[in-house]
Amino acid sequence: MTEPTTDVIAIGNAIVDVMAPCEDELIERFGLVRGGMTLVDTERAHELYEAMGPAREISGGSAANTLAGLAALGSRCAFIGQVADDQLGEVFAHDIRAGGISFATPARAGDPPTARCLIFVTPDGQRTMNTYLGASQYLPPAALDDAAIRDAKILYLEGYLWDPEEPRAAMRRAIAAARGAGRKVAFTLSDAFVIERHGADFRAMIEAGEIDILFANHIELAALTGKDDFHAGIDALRDKVPLVVVTRSEQGAVAAWNGSLAEVPAVPVERVVDTTGAGDLFAAGFLHGHVRGLAVEQCLRLGAICAAEIISHYGARPEADLKALVSGQAE
Amino acid sequence: MTEPTTDVIAIGNAIVDVMAPCEDELIERFGLVRGGMTLVDTERAHELYEAMGPAREISGGSAANTLAGLAALGSRCAFIGQVADDQLGEVFAHDIRAGGISFATPARAGDPPTARCLIFVTPDGQRTMNTYLGASQYLPPAALDDAAIRDAKILYLEGYLWDPEEPRAAMRRAIAAARGAGRKVAFTLSDAFVIERHGADFRAMIEAGEIDILFANHIELAALTGKDDFHAGIDALRDKVPLVVVTRSEQGAVAAWNGSLAEVPAVPVERVVDTTGAGDLFAAGFLHGHVRGLAVEQCLRLGAICAAEIISHYGARPEADLKALVSGQAE
Repeated sequence: MTEPTTDVIAIGNAIVDVMAPCEDELIERFGLVRGGMTLVDTERAHELYEAMGPAREISGGSAANTLAGLAALGSRCAFIGQVADDQLGEVFAHDIRAGGISFATPARAGDPPTARCLIFVTPDGQRTMNTYLGASQYLPPAALDDAAIRDAKILYLEGYLWDPEEPRAAMRRAIAAARGAGRKVAFTLSDAFVIERHGADFRAMIEAGEIDILFANHIELAALTGKDDFHAGIDALRDKVPLVVVTRSEQGAVAAWNGSLAEVPAVPVERVVDTTGAGDLFAAGFLHGHVRGLAVEQCLRLGAICAAEIISHYGARPEADLKALVSGQAE
Repeated sequence: MTEPTTDVIAIGNAIVDVMAPCEDELIERFGLVRGGMTLVDTERAHELYEAMGPAREISGGSAANTLAGLAALGSRCAFIGQVADDQLGEVFAHDIRAGGISFATPARAGDPPTARCLIFVTPDGQRTMNTYLGASQYLPPAALDDAAIRDAKILYLEGYLWDPEEPRAAMRRAIAAARGAGRKVAFTLSDAFVIERHGADFRAMIEAGEIDILFANHIELAALTGKDDFHAGIDALRDKVPLVVVTRSEQGAVAAWNGSLAEVPAVPVERVVDTTGAGDLFAAGFLHGHVRGLAVEQCLRLGAICAAEIISHYGARPEADLKALVSGQAE
């Protein structure tokens, strides 16, 4: 087997974020799930956009954000995800390629349009996401490039995309391709609602040993394992998943592997401007260290640095020079 | 004649800005006019977008930015400008309406698409703009609402839009409507290239007494008057234009009216992040004071405060609470 030429290939939603600050009152008025992600249809998206203040558009998508961080750190990345053949699709494709990420999934013709996520950012910096999935949810298994998957050290999958049927089938096929080539599969649970709907799938995959690296936050960990106690949750997984990485917001992050446990504090920031992408960029830093064979503690530290950068400004794509930020921390 | 219910109605380009940081080397390599605005065709826009890093999209357009500032300060505003019936057109229309600005110009069907401005921001914060005018340049005179123009204290016109033929005809008609109703006409010269092409028009309008308030920066002032000396330039205009307002970047701004002259220093900022919209927001602050009948010195001060806010972050639409920033300065 030849050496992979890609570090991480990811399958995820191809989304443009539409972001605006809002007062807490708006979250209440529209009954939004504060801090969460809710899928919305065309009508609801329209209603929420009407209520949103002047906004800015920045490419997003959980796994795509992670790749943007990885590529900025110097990892070699490829993305699989589907936009529509429209202006927002061009924006997404431009931004991901301009970040140095290989992206070859063809744009889907006709309706629905490219996915967008209406993100309301409250004064505390918390983001409340309302996603219209559009073309992204119809990513067909045929869009996969099995050779590209075999050519990457890690296949990274976004739990959000487990919800719609076609991408779920695509991801199952991708897991088989990666495992068949002896590659690692990394999975992020994304949001508690995904676990509510698909927890049985995830638990079965974990039991079957199909997931090598599992990313979750503490809420998702509890939802998946049914354990309210954080350490009990980790204990429930550690025999089945070689590497479990759990973020705990301002309490930092923990990794468990091979009988060991490591922990890092969160990197302090002057002001939390917008938490969008915190978990995505944590995964970016962690995986960048991991594909370079760094110690787990160092991987956690890189994750914490990248997460701190992303919550210091609007948008889930890095603005500062991540390489410079992590220099001296590793390598 | 009834009292106007709108403070400022503006006619301008309806543009979405596509902004990214870049190194100075890129400006050289593509032969861009550093700090200036250059019109580009589809092909050149494509070439420049290819070379641009990951970007963000924020609504722009010079006069539209000015209205966004005015509305944020509490002035009642209306905008006339043309987008296409596409996603970027929806973005522009949403952002301007969400800012509380009346906007009723119908979107234009079919090609070309909505205007966009590719803005490269160099490490010194200077912006270099490359504008693809798209649907904006076909604003037809028929899109004007003469009643709305008569109902505004000030008609504000953007020099950039003098270049294409249809909007120029529309603006000439708007000037006649405003003057016929006894309203003031404010004009911003926008860029030296506009004066190169249309200086004769502007000088004729000034001679004819059609412009009540003229906004320019020091470079545009020199281009219009042919006087390299700043004060000679102002002297050349002050008998013909009741109120001349000239911005001088970090040297502040000057206004000349009725034999008087007033000057304000620039408001210092911690770091110049992106100069896009500095002149637009200066005009916003100034006009907000002017429609409230404040002294010219106070109008200048409001302009300087708004300009300082806009250059402290990416994008030409205000992010901070402008009302709070100017409170105590006036009213």
